[in-house]
Amino acid sequence: MPTAATPKPPYYAVVFTSQRSEGDRGYASVARRMEELAAGQPGFLGIESARGPDGFGITVSYWTSEEAIAGWKANAEHAAAQEAGRSTWYSSFAIRVARVERAYGSAR
Amino acid sequence: MPTAATPKPPYYAVVFTSQRSEGDRGYASVARRMEELAAGQPGFLGIESARGPDGFGITVSYWTSEEAIAGWKANAEHAAAQEAGRSTWYSSFAIRVARVERAYGSAR
Repeated sequence: MPTAATPKPPYYAVVFTSQRSEGDRGYASVARRMEELAAGQPGFLGIESARGPDGFGITVSYWTSEEAIAGWKANAEHAAAQEAGRSTWYSSFAIRVARVERAYGSAR
Repeated sequence: MPTAATPKPPYYAVVFTSQRSEGDRGYASVARRMEELAAGQPGFLGIESARGPDGFGITVSYWTSEEAIAGWKANAEHAAAQEAGRSTWYSSFAIRVARVERAYGSAR
């Protein structure tokens, strides 16, 4: 997954960290579907995701505004996935909503 | 790596995304050392990191203030590692500094 091509700050980030429980149990296909679904939401700017062999993962999605984040959280198909995440896919998770103040980087 | 036990917001997050180039070339040991070093910096609150089999990784470090982030960036040993990252370890990277406004989560 490449680094997301986000605009000049300010914008918003949702940092979602999670520890996967054992077994797929439908996780992989729903995770892919959620990335597609997020990308079609109003105010979506980009998404980045990484998960290590220990099952600990970080997904950061970027949004134009807090309103856009609220809209994504309330999406019905996403809400069903959130419930499956809480009950089945994750042994723990944390969500942090943050305002990106500045950004820089490099590619070679 | 567990989810970082951060305090009640507001606080700051540095979201560092990177694509590793081929070969270790000293990366793993310096990455471990940087996590230790960050943890000893004034204003450090926690760190989370994940890297997938494609070499794309996300590290989020949490800090009390922008001043704490500036202090960490300026740390001499860290500055040397940043230079090696730019020249050798990463084919691309992005750094975003964000103010965490709210946070929630769950463990079971």
